[in-house]
Amino acid sequence: MKNDAIIMTMLFDYYGELLTEKQKNCFDLYYNQDFSLGEIASDEGITRQGVHDSILRAENALLEYEEKLCCVQRDVALAEATKQIEAIATRLEKRLDPELKRLAAEIKAALEQMKE
Amino acid sequence: MKNDAIIMTMLFDYYGELLTEKQKNCFDLYYNQDFSLGEIASDEGITRQGVHDSILRAENALLEYEEKLCCVQRDVALAEATKQIEAIATRLEKRLDPELKRLAAEIKAALEQMKE
Repeated sequence: MKNDAIIMTMLFDYYGELLTEKQKNCFDLYYNQDFSLGEIASDEGITRQGVHDSILRAENALLEYEEKLCCVQRDVALAEATKQIEAIATRLEKRLDPELKRLAAEIKAALEQMKE
Repeated sequence: MKNDAIIMTMLFDYYGELLTEKQKNCFDLYYNQDFSLGEIASDEGITRQGVHDSILRAENALLEYEEKLCCVQRDVALAEATKQIEAIATRLEKRLDPELKRLAAEIKAALEQMKE
């Protein structure tokens, strides 16, 4: 466990709500709060093995959700495209033509709306 | 059942892969192929009540996934913002300035990338 921690915490941000309460707690304490398995066990009143199994099940569930729904993969592509469009809007903003400045502001407003 | 069929089929497009095979089959035949409960029952070799329960469980599961993940809600907002930016790119395309034409093409390419 604790491989690909960045990927795991990203998946948790997207699909964490689909885990059981116990899986969510164990996962959060382990990956986000950096507790050890032993610390989580005494905190949650379960065995160390129980914590281990719970986190493993959570990891597998998160990977399966991503395999089926691809939310993270799509959002990474979206963020890349958004960055490109934002850079173009910044170039338009620098033009003297007031219409171009206005269109740049409209593009940036639409991008903001996307992020909500 | 068969209320909000448009919403239900949208939710199915997003989260259908998370349903059981039986739920997926029953839901698809009922909502997408317009079979009756009785027709699905004889097709699948289960009771009419079994089909009814399966579709109901599928509907509830889909609604719950959307409540937790909001994929449909986010994609509706995304589609709206994309449309606005596309309209702006079309205006830029019509300008004589070749740099603006190029920037418009870059915006449209980035939007295409988002849709993939």
